[in-house]
Amino acid sequence: MQVSFTPAEIVTLVQPAQTRGATAETICGIGALATAGRGEISFLGNPKYRADVAACEASIILLPLDHEGEPKLGQLYLLIEQPSVALAQICSRIEQRLWPKPAPGIHPSSVIEPGATIAETAAIGPFCVIESGAHIGAGTHLQAQVFVGRNSRIGEQCWLMSGVVVATECFLANRVRLHPGVVIGSDGFGYEFVNGRHEKVPQVGTVEIESDVEIGANTTLDRARFSRTVIGEGTKIDNLVQVAHNVIIGRHCILCAQVGISGSTILEDYVVLGGQAGVAGHITLGKGAKSGGGAAITASVPAGKFVNGAPARAYMLERRLQILYQRLPELFKRVGELEEQLKLSSA
Amino acid sequence: MQVSFTPAEIVTLVQPAQTRGATAETICGIGALATAGRGEISFLGNPKYRADVAACEASIILLPLDHEGEPKLGQLYLLIEQPSVALAQICSRIEQRLWPKPAPGIHPSSVIEPGATIAETAAIGPFCVIESGAHIGAGTHLQAQVFVGRNSRIGEQCWLMSGVVVATECFLANRVRLHPGVVIGSDGFGYEFVNGRHEKVPQVGTVEIESDVEIGANTTLDRARFSRTVIGEGTKIDNLVQVAHNVIIGRHCILCAQVGISGSTILEDYVVLGGQAGVAGHITLGKGAKSGGGAAITASVPAGKFVNGAPARAYMLERRLQILYQRLPELFKRVGELEEQLKLSSA
Amino acid sequence: MQVSFTPAEIVTLVQPAQTRGATAETICGIGALATAGRGEISFLGNPKYRADVAACEASIILLPLDHEGEPKLGQLYLLIEQPSVALAQICSRIEQRLWPKPAPGIHPSSVIEPGATIAETAAIGPFCVIESGAHIGAGTHLQAQVFVGRNSRIGEQCWLMSGVVVATECFLANRVRLHPGVVIGSDGFGYEFVNGRHEKVPQVGTVEIESDVEIGANTTLDRARFSRTVIGEGTKIDNLVQVAHNVIIGRHCILCAQVGISGSTILEDYVVLGGQAGVAGHITLGKGAKSGGGAAITASVPAGKFVNGAPARAYMLERRLQILYQRLPELFKRVGELEEQLKLSSA
Repeated sequence: MQVSFTPAEIVTLVQPAQTRGATAETICGIGALATAGRGEISFLGNPKYRADVAACEASIILLPLDHEGEPKLGQLYLLIEQPSVALAQICSRIEQRLWPKPAPGIHPSSVIEPGATIAETAAIGPFCVIESGAHIGAGTHLQAQVFVGRNSRIGEQCWLMSGVVVATECFLANRVRLHPGVVIGSDGFGYEFVNGRHEKVPQVGTVEIESDVEIGANTTLDRARFSRTVIGEGTKIDNLVQVAHNVIIGRHCILCAQVGISGSTILEDYVVLGGQAGVAGHITLGKGAKSGGGAAITASVPAGKFVNGAPARAYMLERRLQILYQRLPELFKRVGELEEQLKLSSA
Repeated sequence: MQVSFTPAEIVTLVQPAQTRGATAETICGIGALATAGRGEISFLGNPKYRADVAACEASIILLPLDHEGEPKLGQLYLLIEQPSVALAQICSRIEQRLWPKPAPGIHPSSVIEPGATIAETAAIGPFCVIESGAHIGAGTHLQAQVFVGRNSRIGEQCWLMSGVVVATECFLANRVRLHPGVVIGSDGFGYEFVNGRHEKVPQVGTVEIESDVEIGANTTLDRARFSRTVIGEGTKIDNLVQVAHNVIIGRHCILCAQVGISGSTILEDYVVLGGQAGVAGHITLGKGAKSGGGAAITASVPAGKFVNGAPARAYMLERRLQILYQRLPELFKRVGELEEQLKLSSA
Repeated sequence: MQVSFTPAEIVTLVQPAQTRGATAETICGIGALATAGRGEISFLGNPKYRADVAACEASIILLPLDHEGEPKLGQLYLLIEQPSVALAQICSRIEQRLWPKPAPGIHPSSVIEPGATIAETAAIGPFCVIESGAHIGAGTHLQAQVFVGRNSRIGEQCWLMSGVVVATECFLANRVRLHPGVVIGSDGFGYEFVNGRHEKVPQVGTVEIESDVEIGANTTLDRARFSRTVIGEGTKIDNLVQVAHNVIIGRHCILCAQVGISGSTILEDYVVLGGQAGVAGHITLGKGAKSGGGAAITASVPAGKFVNGAPARAYMLERRLQILYQRLPELFKRVGELEEQLKLSSA
């Protein structure tokens, strides 16, 4: 991290209730208690690591108000009601320095087709292409090498990073954040089998992404066959996820990396899918349904249920089955012994 | 969808045998019977949804010739031999409006190296790079930010969307469609372990993609170690699929999203792989072999066989095993009871 | 392959101990014994294919010193101590012709922000963006359409192919090779659930990639929450792999395609993960640990252990369990017979 803070800047930022000790080190990193060293700040966010504080080499440590013990020489303790919140404040400040808001304007290298409209406060970096009829909202930032297709609309305060592709007629609301390489609005995967060949079914629907959605690097979202593929407000999607055509994802869902969702499936609000989970098409995951990583969800899941396994079952059932599966050698042995005993007894 | 049609345009397009009712609404969307509203068109493609027609709010409904019942006020029924075919006609028309064929020519921003040849009827969008010795065929469209490496050849009427990368010496036949972020011809993953380090095995083969292949967003196809990685005519590949070096895929195969195929494996014609299926290296999937989603195919599959599970087995066997797996608690109980009974009887 | 060699060039290159026969064909391809034809070179790398040599149609065949038998008319045998090594020499030569080292310099289309530093011997292709404070080392090649974010440092002799994105403040050592579409330094996937919404946890750490790392197409590596995500020296990562925030990968590891590694997990040196394997967060895979393809590794693995299955278990245990699983129909039958017999015997 090339961002740095003086101890005084940290104190001003987190406003500790009490300080112990002192340090002259400039802080240019954050580390866990076990690994942080000189010039870094650490914190006690979870009481179970309390014993690690004494040995920690960080120049500054954020600690809860009731923490006892004294800092080493050249070490500063900051006692504070919520060390985790204080750390988040510091991280936010670093974030602002790492990614300063670019000045509004359009880089002269970018290609803006006639009929595209770009808010005055938007910032368009180099080598972007914005096709005719597209709109870029106020305060939105296209980092570089971004493509926005014909008639697509990007709302306000969005952030589309390098290499993002938003195809024709897709719609993003406000504060949507797309990481590098995200593809929005590629064709759904639909063919009809005619005379030994797969004939393409036109995919003429759209993608709608509601406000406060964040989507991870190289994730792909297909446009609907007709109508819409939808990502609900506040939903967060990790890297390399596949969302097929006509999928409807509710609000505040979490899709971990490499999840795949087949066509026309519905995720209600607050669904959480572990990494590499796969979801069949044309089913519904009820509100707050959850899956473990790698689960293969082949049927609808009632609201609030936690499923796991491949094919996915109720979490506790799958856990029990896995334990019995591992006892198969024992079971075969017991059955063999029963057979032996019966042979003897019937002899 | 910002494309719209008047009712008269729809009637002209689908040529119904009979009409009932009338609407003044401009049609700017397509929806299922259960969800379509005013200003949208819907259709009865499958007789099992017949009961939904009466309640449907769409302004126009495409119906089979034998459909009984009357439209609501302001609603238009179009009776027609094959409502699904009529819908496809409408979708094709929308498709043409969404993606009008660009005018031939080379965007002045693009970099065409000396020695590259581009057909007069090809259309090269902004920020493309076409290296020396590469050829772009007649009617082919590079949307924007596309890279075509040295000596690669792209055939006629292909469509390479934004951010596609075709590396050095790869070959695409005609009407190949590559969605955004596709990478063709990255190095195969091959190393020799020498003195504790992985030494790279040069990957100097090519990729050949036959005609009428479509490849989904962010899918990757590795070049052969030597010789060729091949995708056969008419094969369709979904998003985020991995095809390793020296894989030979036959004609008219279907690879759903996130499938991975290991090196030197052969897929004969008409193979179908469900989403997230994984295929081991150096095996053969016979003509028309199929797998369920998430299957882990570790051995060759005879022609026409349907496999499932991890590791993959014959579909019906795996299904039966899954049912018995779920009955493990019962089996353990039954064995326990047998043991109890034998103890008693031998007592 | 548009690269070609005369037979004399091949002989000069591989320096055979003995030659038999002669050919006038120009060599413009490499093939396996079973498939190579005229104008191609083949080789006997593994003695078990010895019987295929006589039928091989290649114009030149590389053979071990003790090989008996005579070439066909117009065919040249080159007898040599290590045919595989000779083949590797030829491949390296082809590699140099396929990917000639570009001349140093910066393509005039690229955008180099003030404050970026680029070594004189670096080669920057078209449409690259190098932000302020970034550094590109000696001999490094950015192919085209590459993005290097603020303050990132790329070492010497690296090769970043088309469409690679290196976000802000990431660090690559020397001879790092990134295939097209790789994303380095996207945000880690971290949120806190506050009042029914997922609030973003700032991801302000970095990614550090040590020397001699190679990373496959469209793979994504997230930056740390704070501190570092690390890829150790000599590690090789295949296509479409996901490495989450704060993961620490040791030296000389192998991650096959579509592997996913969850946050804060540690891979010690020489770990090997099969394709599509998934690894849970906050665990450690010991030195030299291995997994089969598709394994779901949910707990730490001791050094040197080979695991497989979902959830992953010791390889031989999982293999035994899989065999017993497939014998479940038999086991149910045997238990039914026991029950029958006991009923009879107690009758």
